[in-house]
Amino acid sequence: MPDSIAIVSGGMDSVTLLHHLVKVEKRHPAVITFAYGQKHDKEVAFAKAHAETLECKPFQLLDLSAFAPLFASSSLVSEQLDIPNIEAVLGDPQPSTYVPNRNMMFLALTAAWAETLQVSDIYYGAQRHDIYGYWDTTPQFLAHINAIFSLNRKMPIHIHAPFINESKTDILQRGLTMGVNYAQTWSCYEGNLKACGTCPTCAERLKAFADLQMIDPVPYMLLGN
Amino acid sequence: MPDSIAIVSGGMDSVTLLHHLVKVEKRHPAVITFAYGQKHDKEVAFAKAHAETLECKPFQLLDLSAFAPLFASSSLVSEQLDIPNIEAVLGDPQPSTYVPNRNMMFLALTAAWAETLQVSDIYYGAQRHDIYGYWDTTPQFLAHINAIFSLNRKMPIHIHAPFINESKTDILQRGLTMGVNYAQTWSCYEGNLKACGTCPTCAERLKAFADLQMIDPVPYMLLGN
Repeated sequence: MPDSIAIVSGGMDSVTLLHHLVKVEKRHPAVITFAYGQKHDKEVAFAKAHAETLECKPFQLLDLSAFAPLFASSSLVSEQLDIPNIEAVLGDPQPSTYVPNRNMMFLALTAAWAETLQVSDIYYGAQRHDIYGYWDTTPQFLAHINAIFSLNRKMPIHIHAPFINESKTDILQRGLTMGVNYAQTWSCYEGNLKACGTCPTCAERLKAFADLQMIDPVPYMLLGN
Repeated sequence: MPDSIAIVSGGMDSVTLLHHLVKVEKRHPAVITFAYGQKHDKEVAFAKAHAETLECKPFQLLDLSAFAPLFASSSLVSEQLDIPNIEAVLGDPQPSTYVPNRNMMFLALTAAWAETLQVSDIYYGAQRHDIYGYWDTTPQFLAHINAIFSLNRKMPIHIHAPFINESKTDILQRGLTMGVNYAQTWSCYEGNLKACGTCPTCAERLKAFADLQMIDPVPYMLLGN
């Protein structure tokens, strides 16, 4: 039986978090991942692959993609909106890559499952960089959501974001120490065969690898690999 | 274009709320309703009927019933759990009729839609009676959820629960004044052809009609109507 739940997108941060929970914290998390009409839904397969490798059960895919019109103001979802590059989003407190209320939706659905599974700990991969554009990755958001769950009368849920004060470079460093295979992760918002290299999450990811003088094993269009 | 969103289950409280918003507050709410594997999903048709009568557009049914295993600890959902009667739930701070984290799920999904629709006001039908067993209908819950949404950097959402301090009798009195047809609402958790008359919501509903010396137009098994 699981003793917790990890929300895993299949990107670098949440995959590293899952390995950290199993290998360092010695937890036995169930894994939940979400499809919501994101262009880069190929990430979901990587979430599943790591859950299998680490023997995390049960694995739950929640497919919200039928509700994509609800999230259609996001360039991660709408075919009418192009994914901006990193320069276009810096300085914007809520860029088009923001998905309306995504993290509260994910946490709320996961908390329902946690109550049914009778586990009180939920982990998600918020990290320091995303604070620039996403209010729902901030320490304030985390504190407020935990304040709400503390009101539950029988099954208070605690949301943990162990990497919330860490940079992507810090997270990558952790993952490399644990032997995480980053070829089996996906970050690029475009969701094409190769990563674009210029969208906000590609830019952050490439910087993290560069900081550690490493080559990202994921193929990039601009790099010709 | 809508100027707000109302969450309407098809029960007495939320249907009255919708009429109140349109007829008294002169608002133009979109309407959202949820299927989540509840035994009494016949309520959904009444939500739709009132939205049509009041010309509330768009109407959105979010069907979460594929995720019913997440909520399977609730007797409103699980076929393995019987719906308790009113005596069995009084004194229980979170009875089996509680659906895990339901209201946060509904509000979180509705808030995403609100951001995409660019409306900032969401209404839901919390009322005073439900505080006995449901932490997510309390003024504290409402205050905390609004504290979270105030962090949104471009589209702060405000959750309103105008009936949160009212009894079901107060709400019924309002509805009768506005000409609400309560034959076109459904409350009973059992979801059979006739209402059981003994489950917690039937008991509350019957008491409200009795308080006003009225006969509930919905057929009840025990009353033979």
